[in-house]
Amino acid sequence: MDKGDGLVTIAWEEIYYNTQKWMREAGEQIRASFADTLTIDYKLDASDLVTNMDKQTEQFFIEKINETYPEHRIMGEEGYGDVVETVNGTIWIIDPIDGTVNFVHMKRHFAISIGIYHEGEGVIGMIYDVVNDELYHAQKGKGAFVDDQKLPMLEEIKVDSAVVSMNAAWAIPNRLIEPQLIPPLVNDLRGTRSIGSAAIEMVYVASGKIDGYLTLRLSPWDFAAGKILIEEVGGKTSNVNGEPLNILEKSTVFVAKPGLHEQIVNNYLKKESK
Amino acid sequence: MDKGDGLVTIAWEEIYYNTQKWMREAGEQIRASFADTLTIDYKLDASDLVTNMDKQTEQFFIEKINETYPEHRIMGEEGYGDVVETVNGTIWIIDPIDGTVNFVHMKRHFAISIGIYHEGEGVIGMIYDVVNDELYHAQKGKGAFVDDQKLPMLEEIKVDSAVVSMNAAWAIPNRLIEPQLIPPLVNDLRGTRSIGSAAIEMVYVASGKIDGYLTLRLSPWDFAAGKILIEEVGGKTSNVNGEPLNILEKSTVFVAKPGLHEQIVNNYLKKESK
Repeated sequence: MDKGDGLVTIAWEEIYYNTQKWMREAGEQIRASFADTLTIDYKLDASDLVTNMDKQTEQFFIEKINETYPEHRIMGEEGYGDVVETVNGTIWIIDPIDGTVNFVHMKRHFAISIGIYHEGEGVIGMIYDVVNDELYHAQKGKGAFVDDQKLPMLEEIKVDSAVVSMNAAWAIPNRLIEPQLIPPLVNDLRGTRSIGSAAIEMVYVASGKIDGYLTLRLSPWDFAAGKILIEEVGGKTSNVNGEPLNILEKSTVFVAKPGLHEQIVNNYLKKESK
Repeated sequence: MDKGDGLVTIAWEEIYYNTQKWMREAGEQIRASFADTLTIDYKLDASDLVTNMDKQTEQFFIEKINETYPEHRIMGEEGYGDVVETVNGTIWIIDPIDGTVNFVHMKRHFAISIGIYHEGEGVIGMIYDVVNDELYHAQKGKGAFVDDQKLPMLEEIKVDSAVVSMNAAWAIPNRLIEPQLIPPLVNDLRGTRSIGSAAIEMVYVASGKIDGYLTLRLSPWDFAAGKILIEEVGGKTSNVNGEPLNILEKSTVFVAKPGLHEQIVNNYLKKESK
């Protein structure tokens, strides 16, 4: 709102409230689509179906945001938003269905992910595990929650007690990391997992279900919300070299509990460490 | 029951009914324990806690089975059952909590798994996803179900469309498979996942959520139930060389949709193929 002094105060509490409301509405539509699927299964193949639901969900958010906050910009996976090349102003970064393959194959383990950044700083992070009806939400400096339950701060943990999400694709030789770096980490961890949705894996880190998440190729909409949620509970986020994530670029991503993050970056992931 | 001719007919329908009933009872106790955890968190560490719940659940089943079917033998992960060295008679193969690390860290993605074998043949397979309250059950020749919904027969799928569960630990050099065999498979698949509970991964295969599951070290209680469920919907089960699983021995395990199983065993996993 304009306070008459030429400066505009942003109604973050209202945005926070609206984002939650819209997420739950979009989730309800997605859950309802599963019933439809059974009847249209024979007309559409799986990729058409998911494309429709992805697009429809992104357009739902874009309409709501444009209507309510016309001055905000939107970066969305499906490309219906704006072309965002600077961090100026307020930017909504949206993945309407994160974990598309899971959505089609499993009808579970996918999420809606929305991160809201202002002048490059994360302000609101929200990830909705649609099938479990679990809404993870955080506002910078005000704590992170799952539904109405506050998430505790993350505690330090050692590598040999830690469970880290990491796809097998990153453990075999690939173009994105030197091939000798990952196997010693996999050997030293208590265990690895791979759920197949960056948003779900990041809320698992934020809520202490897993201790870290490593991936070598994410787009801003895959990590924008999770970064805010994880940092709000004291977790650390970076690329594999320990450098800050840039919300305008594709990146390697490593997020983890405090202590564990530094140990893994310094002892396993940094190229110069080997 | 003894029909007077010296032969004993086994009341499979009754066993099937009782197993379902006992599974749901045990699951209810496990879910209730999550509430307790919050109060005893500071007295017991995570490993004590899970040991108690694992043991308690196994003993629950052993009491029920010994009381109702005293002539049956029991092979259980926690070792309270019998020493089973032959396949004679009726054997219950029980994993009271499959996915112990998930149970402790995530309070989800674990299951109770019971396979019942008679003279070496799988007769009843049952896996209970406790947190999602989904009971997968099959009786040989009578179809597989999740709760009261019949699972459809699995359809063939090609490698490049398939999602296979496989831990990153099996993609890096290890003692259990030749190191050059796995990376080409990971590269050619549509994707990999790793949930961290063999029982959950096997019901995901049985219900078509994933297309296959590969692991290099399982005990009989990890695969006894899943084998029956998967075969009942036309899926294939074997060790990594395509040989039948032996329910008395630890083994590598590969289960998958028909067609996909043969392709992956013949083109990727068999040592002689490379």
